Amino acid sequence: MDKLTLIKVGGKIVEEPASLKQMLSDFAKIDGYKILVHGGGRSATRLAERLGIETKMVEGRRITDAETLKVVTMVYAGWVNKSIVAELQSMGVNAMGMCGADAGVILSHRRAAAGIDYGFVGDVDKVNGRMLSEIINGGTVPVIAPITHDGKGSLLNTNADTIAGEVAKGVAGYFDVTLVYCFEKPGVLANEEDDTSVIPEIDRSIFARYKEAGIITGGMIPKLQSAFDALEKGVGQVVIKQASDIADKGAGTLIRL
Amino acid sequence: MDKLTLIKVGGKIVEEPASLKQMLSDFAKIDGYKILVHGGGRSATRLAERLGIETKMVEGRRITDAETLKVVTMVYAGWVNKSIVAELQSMGVNAMGMCGADAGVILSHRRAAAGIDYGFVGDVDKVNGRMLSEIINGGTVPVIAPITHDGKGSLLNTNADTIAGEVAKGVAGYFDVTLVYCFEKPGVLANEEDDTSVIPEIDRSIFARYKEAGIITGGMIPKLQSAFDALEKGVGQVVIKQASDIADKGAGTLIRL
Repeated sequence: MDKLTLIKVGGKIVEEPASLKQMLSDFAKIDGYKILVHGGGRSATRLAERLGIETKMVEGRRITDAETLKVVTMVYAGWVNKSIVAELQSMGVNAMGMCGADAGVILSHRRAAAGIDYGFVGDVDKVNGRMLSEIINGGTVPVIAPITHDGKGSLLNTNADTIAGEVAKGVAGYFDVTLVYCFEKPGVLANEEDDTSVIPEIDRSIFARYKEAGIITGGMIPKLQSAFDALEKGVGQVVIKQASDIADKGAGTLIRL
Repeated sequence: MDKLTLIKVGGKIVEEPASLKQMLSDFAKIDGYKILVHGGGRSATRLAERLGIETKMVEGRRITDAETLKVVTMVYAGWVNKSIVAELQSMGVNAMGMCGADAGVILSHRRAAAGIDYGFVGDVDKVNGRMLSEIINGGTVPVIAPITHDGKGSLLNTNADTIAGEVAKGVAGYFDVTLVYCFEKPGVLANEEDDTSVIPEIDRSIFARYKEAGIITGGMIPKLQSAFDALEKGVGQVVIKQASDIADKGAGTLIRL
């Protein structure tokens, strides 16, 4: 199978024009088939503030009401997505901006949680890997914004990390997929204070040992668990690295089953 | 060649959820290959107002500064485009939302006018009809927002009527194209005061005669001239009708060479 690299970027890297441009220039250099999944950083929150839309949080999670859905769709699927596409086009990458509703590639449902109405937040049901692989084989590079749809006419705000994992699994039947999560650190660190302490490779047994020893803790645990889940569902390899290292094949932490 | 219907809608029809839904339901019923080109109505102006962005007009034309470009991209290529796509998906139409930067389908350049800087306004150079026809043959229905790109990394605000005409000409080598301009009136009227006075068919000689007689006047003259231009460049037929008549094949005014 042909190799495909799926890069997930978000946060500050997409907020600042200079770092975004550098990242896209590195992305443009990646050989072979590729997909970019992006978040929107804090730009949606800033637009909501300017419009006087209150950000409602319940148990640390943002509630997406109708007005907020409009804002995140405008920012993520509109400005951020199309700016990235125009930039990539200027770099010779035939980018095709999409959200999950486009060509019906990502179907989701409204999150149902006991006692909490998250509003227009989507949990992914299904990625149409065949449609995505046809789009890729047609010569374009999908650039995917974290907005999905429920198939009943409603758009839904969906976590970009989740989308990256689901899309990677969705196209795993068609390509040999490397999923790269860009992160603010150069990889999974053995010592959180020391950026040079990157663990080069983690498999299930190393993961169990490092978790036991308290080396891998906190938010990194669910990140790695979802990486192992992707690997079990056919993704070839998962890498956690810094966005500035996208073009450097050896950088970051490689996760293998 | 297979038939393809390109519908251009804008104005009030896309602003109001009820009329938009009705129009999309009619669009869904059109047989064969199709493309939807949409404007954004006044929603971009309203968002700009809420954000305190001043609308600058020079000689009756809107100037698109950097902030305004962001607003129109968010509204047209973000909210309006993705809402339409999600709605069409729910109606069984495999819609693919795009702007002109996506897959590089519409290349434009910044409008250069003596003494006036229109800002980020694009005049179309080239439509990639082959790429669009491949997207259509891949089983999706392009839904195109009136934003293009200059190939150098910049998005450009572009007139939706122009995009419809250029896209129709661009795909005319691949399909037998009917270009339908939706209008607030049921067609070209022999008597502006009488909505039942629709002229069923206009060719160049009828156009010349009606123009001479003062029956066709004002803004309808350049509209018809661009229709004749599209016909000369290979578009099979052009129809001017009301959005509510999209599904009615006989309605409106048919323009032929």
